[in-house]
Amino acid sequence: PLLVSSMLRNAVKTHGDTEIVSRTAEGAIHRYTYEDFWRRSQQLAHALHRLGLRAGDRVGTLAWNGHRHLELLYAVSGAGFVSHTINPRLFPDQIAGIIEHAGDRVLFVEPDMLGLIEKLAERLQGVEAIVILADRSRMPVSARFPDLLCYEELIEGQPNVFEWPQLDERTACGLCYTSGTTGAPKGVLYSHRSCVLHAMAVCMPDSFGLAAADSAMPVVPMFHVNAWGLPYASILVGAKLVLPGAKLDGTSLHGLIASEGVTMTAGVPTVWTGLLEWVAAHGETLGSLRKVGIGGSACPPVMIERFAALGVDVVHAWGMTESSPVALACQPKRKHHHLPAEARRALGRKQGRPLTGIELKVLGPDRREVPRDGKTFGRLMIRGPTVAAGYFASENDEAFAEPGWFDTGDVVTLDQDGFVEIVDRTKDVIKSGGEWIGSIELENIAVSHPSVREAAVVARPDPKWGERPVLFVVPNDGKTFTATDALAHYDGKVAKWCIPTEVRVVDALPHTATGKLLKSEIRKMV
Amino acid sequence: PLLVSSMLRNAVKTHGDTEIVSRTAEGAIHRYTYEDFWRRSQQLAHALHRLGLRAGDRVGTLAWNGHRHLELLYAVSGAGFVSHTINPRLFPDQIAGIIEHAGDRVLFVEPDMLGLIEKLAERLQGVEAIVILADRSRMPVSARFPDLLCYEELIEGQPNVFEWPQLDERTACGLCYTSGTTGAPKGVLYSHRSCVLHAMAVCMPDSFGLAAADSAMPVVPMFHVNAWGLPYASILVGAKLVLPGAKLDGTSLHGLIASEGVTMTAGVPTVWTGLLEWVAAHGETLGSLRKVGIGGSACPPVMIERFAALGVDVVHAWGMTESSPVALACQPKRKHHHLPAEARRALGRKQGRPLTGIELKVLGPDRREVPRDGKTFGRLMIRGPTVAAGYFASENDEAFAEPGWFDTGDVVTLDQDGFVEIVDRTKDVIKSGGEWIGSIELENIAVSHPSVREAAVVARPDPKWGERPVLFVVPNDGKTFTATDALAHYDGKVAKWCIPTEVRVVDALPHTATGKLLKSEIRKMV
Repeated sequence: PLLVSSMLRNAVKTHGDTEIVSRTAEGAIHRYTYEDFWRRSQQLAHALHRLGLRAGDRVGTLAWNGHRHLELLYAVSGAGFVSHTINPRLFPDQIAGIIEHAGDRVLFVEPDMLGLIEKLAERLQGVEAIVILADRSRMPVSARFPDLLCYEELIEGQPNVFEWPQLDERTACGLCYTSGTTGAPKGVLYSHRSCVLHAMAVCMPDSFGLAAADSAMPVVPMFHVNAWGLPYASILVGAKLVLPGAKLDGTSLHGLIASEGVTMTAGVPTVWTGLLEWVAAHGETLGSLRKVGIGGSACPPVMIERFAALGVDVVHAWGMTESSPVALACQPKRKHHHLPAEARRALGRKQGRPLTGIELKVLGPDRREVPRDGKTFGRLMIRGPTVAAGYFASENDEAFAEPGWFDTGDVVTLDQDGFVEIVDRTKDVIKSGGEWIGSIELENIAVSHPSVREAAVVARPDPKWGERPVLFVVPNDGKTFTATDALAHYDGKVAKWCIPTEVRVVDALPHTATGKLLKSEIRKMV
Repeated sequence: PLLVSSMLRNAVKTHGDTEIVSRTAEGAIHRYTYEDFWRRSQQLAHALHRLGLRAGDRVGTLAWNGHRHLELLYAVSGAGFVSHTINPRLFPDQIAGIIEHAGDRVLFVEPDMLGLIEKLAERLQGVEAIVILADRSRMPVSARFPDLLCYEELIEGQPNVFEWPQLDERTACGLCYTSGTTGAPKGVLYSHRSCVLHAMAVCMPDSFGLAAADSAMPVVPMFHVNAWGLPYASILVGAKLVLPGAKLDGTSLHGLIASEGVTMTAGVPTVWTGLLEWVAAHGETLGSLRKVGIGGSACPPVMIERFAALGVDVVHAWGMTESSPVALACQPKRKHHHLPAEARRALGRKQGRPLTGIELKVLGPDRREVPRDGKTFGRLMIRGPTVAAGYFASENDEAFAEPGWFDTGDVVTLDQDGFVEIVDRTKDVIKSGGEWIGSIELENIAVSHPSVREAAVVARPDPKWGERPVLFVVPNDGKTFTATDALAHYDGKVAKWCIPTEVRVVDALPHTATGKLLKSEIRKMV
């Protein structure tokens, strides 16, 4: 069977001395090997049993990317429980709702996230134990939770050999909730099988191409769809794993890339803005880094070019919580090798083509497949062994209305080579004079202007056209950006009727817990 | 479910215009796209049903690597039948035995292999139809088989849309027989699941690293364990596929590499000797070729160096019919990047470390695991989702005596990084004075001598030592090689007591149907 525990056991046998390096909450670097990780995971599995957990029970984590969180990811699943990574950046009410809905019996919490759950204490009645990810010397004192357990004490003295159960590979191993940009977050349950198949698909040369020769740094947090599966994929192939903890600023990330010889990393566009600015300001390079996976929201083309100038390939990727998450990656084909530079850049802007096992179709308003011309808009539907079939403990959801398929809610184009470009979320697309205008393209063009730091485009009701686009801009420090600048900048880049009707300069834009633009809030600003 | 038909359907949707290029039996180049291949495979699936086949029935093929054989590989499995690729180089008696044992109801046969089965006519009572892989103009006439069917007529006019059954992924899709170096060939049945998982594992960067940007040429025949899974792996990722037909000489292979921009190829060492000699004799390069997978028998180190000098990386690999077949591949790890050249070469001589999902252990005579020191000999045992659990329609075999594990019958060493080196087949290892001498190392040293074309080392009974090694040598054209040459050449390369006691120069050595040295015959020459 395809099991998380087998994946780890095989890796340890071949790559026992490969390193796992973590930046701890206190800032110090923790360093150990797969062999050490394996022993401590087995101690943790014993400790979980001693907490009284039974097969299938959910175990919640509120933690940064670090070695203890990694131990939880493997030991909880391997022992037959369900690892539930909770996003601490959700609204407190959502966090409480998720813990209740998941029925988490135990929570593992970073010291610096304790305050977060203290505020939710009265809603954590179902939680039987809270374990702090620290040793005794760093244990916080909590008036709300007098019985906090200490992670290091919990596993200390436990046997370091555990008989991992031979589970059916369709047993649940993990649970993640969507970020809930619309409505309440929804839970997606992953099986051991989908987790292993996703790890394999992510390692293929046409997705992130991970190998034992890599040093991989998942900057995307584990509470964001299991760090896009990289903690599984890296260990599957025996890559060195670098876990950056809570500090994702340019200085911290650059420091780890340099000291740990990082070759591959992945995360949302926002975090790379910080790194690229730091590198430019300090006249530095990105050293050994060769590849950066970018997803979560569309990667602005200018970011791809900045990385390219530093010798780093951007692998533009796309996925959702419901698809484990990586489902598309933008890797050129053989026929693209001799494309002129501009055509190659245009290709890189697309989110990519399906990973192994992923099937897709794009449906027009009549629910028939749209032409594969790279122009016609439609709804993206996907299916495959790593795509969910429904939400955890939930009524039938309309996203799963067509049997076997998941309706992503994204409006996309599909070209004849299978490359998808996300045009917009269904609810964000702007309907003007019977035509659709995608907000993402307009935002990408805006941020390619040297004065623009961030941009958002939303619809404004219009008596004549139905809707018209409004551009919100956060300018770079000390820069200005006017409606005239916008008009000049868009001229020749899009059809005239697509150019935003109005430009508003703002100090900041609202984001979701996962760093995406919160369009529902921005629309309220119109 | 993981199905052969889904793998193809997904590939066609994304890579419909990717080419499949075949050298036909007549020598001409046939060229079409995934889209064409998909249509014809569906016509073939209809035709198979019209032949009266039922779910699970075996369909035998006697064919070279070409587009029609590829159509059979996919359509037979996809439609729910079992594709049985038969090795035409086995002894006629073995071929008849295999067809009987498999219960093949239909045979698909190249025109130039018809003579082979005409001789076996009286033993083909169970075969209800014989289809010749040709169009009407090239149909042979057979007195023995007056009712030969013509492949092109069979599929012509069939609908080119077929409703592929949604099979359970553990349904059988293929059947291959071992080469039978000892005893009768044994059948290994593959499931759709293992076939897809093997294709994924083969594409990972740490095995053959196949991508859509590749042009892959499986030189290893499909009748040799499905061309090591490359026809599945290539289509899984959308690579251009180049099928070289029957002509595997240096001129023919070099021609295809040059004209089709081949980037990756794979085959047994023998075939590369021919290519390398041709390239050297003509002062040519290997053009776009970047990677060559070598397995089937141990790759002599000198071959790795010759390819390296031409800018081609050798991926030394190992597998057996029972392991789908690829189970080990030799790819360096991160720690090996700065190895000195000689240590790097030593690493390349090893067969490699386990592919994703493969678990191994090496047992000493006491059936306990031997030290992972790269020196101690032991028997290689493997298991995993792509390893067989038994032989087709066969009594319990001692190779499967330990539940869950397959005893490979190979004597190997295992080092602390998980790299395996095949020392010998259990039955070929030479026991001298209580120590084991591996024949493969002695053969590799012999062929690194400029006068030696091929070498074999077998045991000779010895009253004092039990056994002593005898070296058989086929010299290069116009060269001589004496016992004195051997002594000087081995001096300093192996311990004195390992140097062959006797040297015999011969014109040729006997081989199995798959090009391996036939040690049982060579021992008779002692």
